[in-house]
Amino acid sequence: MKSDIQIAQECRMLPIRDIGSSLGLSEDDLEYYGKYKAKISLDVLSEREGREDGKLILVTAINPTPAGEGKSTVTVGLGQALNRLGKKTVIALREPSMGPVFGVKGGAAGGGYSQVVPMEDINLHFTGDMHAITSANNLLAAAIDNHVHQGNALGIDIRKITWKRAMDMNDRALRDVVVGLGGKPNGYPREDGFMITVASEIMAILCLSTSLMDLKDRMGRIVIGYDLKGDPVYCRDLKVEGAMALLMKDAIKPNLVQTLENTPAIIHGGPFANIAHGCNSILATRTALKLGEYVITEAGFGADLGAEKFLDIKCRFGGLKPKAVVIVATIRALKLHGGAKKADLSHADLDSLAKGIVNLEKQIENIQGFRLTPVVALNRFATDSEEEIAFIKEFLAGKGIEMALTEVWEKGGEGGLDLARKVIEAADRMEGDYEVIYDTDSPLKEKIETIVRKIYGGNGVAYAAAAEKQIQDLEKFGLDRKPICMAKTQYSLSDNPKLLGRPEGFEVKVNEVRVSNGAGFIVCLTGDIMTMPGLPKVPAAEVMDIDESGNIVGLF
Amino acid sequence: MKSDIQIAQECRMLPIRDIGSSLGLSEDDLEYYGKYKAKISLDVLSEREGREDGKLILVTAINPTPAGEGKSTVTVGLGQALNRLGKKTVIALREPSMGPVFGVKGGAAGGGYSQVVPMEDINLHFTGDMHAITSANNLLAAAIDNHVHQGNALGIDIRKITWKRAMDMNDRALRDVVVGLGGKPNGYPREDGFMITVASEIMAILCLSTSLMDLKDRMGRIVIGYDLKGDPVYCRDLKVEGAMALLMKDAIKPNLVQTLENTPAIIHGGPFANIAHGCNSILATRTALKLGEYVITEAGFGADLGAEKFLDIKCRFGGLKPKAVVIVATIRALKLHGGAKKADLSHADLDSLAKGIVNLEKQIENIQGFRLTPVVALNRFATDSEEEIAFIKEFLAGKGIEMALTEVWEKGGEGGLDLARKVIEAADRMEGDYEVIYDTDSPLKEKIETIVRKIYGGNGVAYAAAAEKQIQDLEKFGLDRKPICMAKTQYSLSDNPKLLGRPEGFEVKVNEVRVSNGAGFIVCLTGDIMTMPGLPKVPAAEVMDIDESGNIVGLF
Repeated sequence: MKSDIQIAQECRMLPIRDIGSSLGLSEDDLEYYGKYKAKISLDVLSEREGREDGKLILVTAINPTPAGEGKSTVTVGLGQALNRLGKKTVIALREPSMGPVFGVKGGAAGGGYSQVVPMEDINLHFTGDMHAITSANNLLAAAIDNHVHQGNALGIDIRKITWKRAMDMNDRALRDVVVGLGGKPNGYPREDGFMITVASEIMAILCLSTSLMDLKDRMGRIVIGYDLKGDPVYCRDLKVEGAMALLMKDAIKPNLVQTLENTPAIIHGGPFANIAHGCNSILATRTALKLGEYVITEAGFGADLGAEKFLDIKCRFGGLKPKAVVIVATIRALKLHGGAKKADLSHADLDSLAKGIVNLEKQIENIQGFRLTPVVALNRFATDSEEEIAFIKEFLAGKGIEMALTEVWEKGGEGGLDLARKVIEAADRMEGDYEVIYDTDSPLKEKIETIVRKIYGGNGVAYAAAAEKQIQDLEKFGLDRKPICMAKTQYSLSDNPKLLGRPEGFEVKVNEVRVSNGAGFIVCLTGDIMTMPGLPKVPAAEVMDIDESGNIVGLF
Repeated sequence: MKSDIQIAQECRMLPIRDIGSSLGLSEDDLEYYGKYKAKISLDVLSEREGREDGKLILVTAINPTPAGEGKSTVTVGLGQALNRLGKKTVIALREPSMGPVFGVKGGAAGGGYSQVVPMEDINLHFTGDMHAITSANNLLAAAIDNHVHQGNALGIDIRKITWKRAMDMNDRALRDVVVGLGGKPNGYPREDGFMITVASEIMAILCLSTSLMDLKDRMGRIVIGYDLKGDPVYCRDLKVEGAMALLMKDAIKPNLVQTLENTPAIIHGGPFANIAHGCNSILATRTALKLGEYVITEAGFGADLGAEKFLDIKCRFGGLKPKAVVIVATIRALKLHGGAKKADLSHADLDSLAKGIVNLEKQIENIQGFRLTPVVALNRFATDSEEEIAFIKEFLAGKGIEMALTEVWEKGGEGGLDLARKVIEAADRMEGDYEVIYDTDSPLKEKIETIVRKIYGGNGVAYAAAAEKQIQDLEKFGLDRKPICMAKTQYSLSDNPKLLGRPEGFEVKVNEVRVSNGAGFIVCLTGDIMTMPGLPKVPAAEVMDIDESGNIVGLF
């Protein structure tokens, strides 16, 4: 079996100029980054303001398991399939973070015959967006410590600086650090930490901004910490939002690439799906909607986290109106949800499947709760038995839900034609708009409880003492009238990663409530949220290599 | 008076494709990064192996002073002037570090009407080379801490890890840090620090490599620290040099831009001129030599540091044979060397000038010591008096040294025509090759003393106890047969920044001797060497801004 990088390197890419032409983009609309990548001018969007939008389709999933569901692969495969059916389609994906590439992951740009290319570039530096975000993040951090060192006119409390430094690397040693050691010339020692770049609020801001000036304003509004009186200190107080915007002048432009089948793909922005909202940028999605009849996008993790934030945060802010939702599931993963062991997944096991399908059932109900029509994509594995497939088909038919088998990893767009047809039908049937599940202006706790009850299926919410205080503070400072960005384990509908399937009767424990004031949402942390991953015992980096002819190994 | 960014933004740039064509480069030879930047394929060099090289001209300077000498501006202006004289000329410059742009500096790409453009890109992310170096540097750092965390099979002594993390930011708080805090999941706490990216050995390696495979081998040879037995541990022991090379696959390719007068400029690599050798990359210079009749390059700081390392390290490693050397001086700076105060520089002061000109005299002798012909470029200021200019002219005439007045800041290439003519003559007169001043295989102390006596004019060298021990260790491990990279203050010929002019009778104190085994040189530290700058009281970042039309302010 060929590896992803082998398949990717054998593909015949079209010059990105030709991909642009196929979307009606001129030379002036694109800035080339090599032959196969380009940035799309923001003018493309503003010049097409009056044009009707294409149809927006979200791809989401059941709660992820170690078996892997293939959400990105289905997203790419569905786009390729629609293209084969003669529908002008644009795929709108998140940019992968470089850090995890060196850890376990190897790469993240779809897989098999449903990949975006050039995958080695997309997985590494790409067009430099991540680096720009890292730089803007760390310029603000340097400005904070410099301000304190130079006299601290703002009275910043160095014990309450919430802005962390960032690096696009899996580096556990940087999670908790002390900076400013070495004596007076080096400033004041204080506790600090690094996040991986995709967890930075700058990334969330990039993804929610509607223009460079909006981006600058949002960066100015970032709360960097608190002063000695306890009042919030903003980025704009340090006067560096202009320099930060300058650093982001190119990063804000969406990136155009293609799939293995030459379907256009816009890859832009990739915020963490826990501490942030886990969706690609509003600007990229809007641009794609002006260029294609169909736009296929995805959101991080399962529908309880990804789809909820996509709909309640991204679409709300961006005025986006999705027409249908694909929920990706695999038989292997559903059996894990039903209690099967990972080692036994290759055997037919209707019992575990029947127990685990409730996870899919709940995600379907969740999507319906937003007044949207879900289509289930059952991503087929060689080990799936006919009985198991028949069981799921029957289960879904009983609920009036369409299902399509997909084989996009092995067959590319050809393996997603049935799904594509069903998605077209679902989108055609959609009338009116989807509905958010809570009002931004509702009290903070009410918004949190709505998500927990309606989406997670929990009984209620318990607040840690610290969280109670933080909620009071946010209300006092008038920083509470924003959507909620839940930071919860992706593995369970609850806040306990061990409760698979469709848990009931649980309470969600909120440990911390923070404002991402620039991004414009309140982050609500449940459980331990990791914002800086580590490397495993044998990092993927150890097998990566490049030879003198440019052949690459170890990206997969 | 217009600011540099104003002048730069008013210039009519040619599409970089046209600049490439003027050098005989095809579409396939270039990878575009937007419309005005491109990476040059390494094949361009290998395909032209048999072709005769152009003439290499080095631009260096007297010891720098707060008055500023304009070395980069003269370099760009000279290139433009040669071009005006019908000589096909390529300028080969270092890439500016982004960090200092936000501090005092504002920008570093020449000035006035002798700039390289697009200056806002060159000064910020450019084509991402700095970010690639930062990533490769920090991947190695993460691999080290991960190795220790995962069981430390190599027995790395965490008290003796010499590899530091890097960031392209002026951030004093990161000079001395403790990482790995927070308990067992975060690894072992240890002292660490960040360098600014240009001070990373990866940058020096990039600049001294002759191919991607050479780069990979050199990265593998990096000494990252010592094990518990006291033996060196190498990057290759951690098996990440392949992944690091993958990260550098594009960064190794030289970048093509242009000057305000559309003269081609290759800007690639910018190692710190103290901890490293301060020259642009060998690959860029070699490529330029295959494309132009004349190649103008520069080296960091004054001739005692920059030219010496250019000749003894870069040209030695790269087999480069410079044909002439320009020494940039200003009357204002020479008066400072003669004891004048900065506030008085606008008044004629023959006395201070006569006292300070000895600095120029010594730098001339130094260049002659390498068997090269210096031409003095007197970079003219409005405040220079005729008497002062006449004095210098006479002084140099007495030594048989050519001098040219330059007004390249105000007039572009037009202001450098006289210099260009004299450089052409000097290069034509050059017979045979220059000579290095020491043999790589000589004992370490002998090499250091040769530099101190011949170039700095000192009496001898004193070694700190630590340095003695380090020299013994390097000899023991067989790591000593390499050129010396002196890390010394740039302000004086001695190691005391206060001794201006041409100090005599001094001893140089060597505090530390380190091997940059990947780069292939021994760093010899005298005095305090800063590898991470800080931001000033009012950082340049505070005045930088960009508006909705893309107009930029604050880069100068």
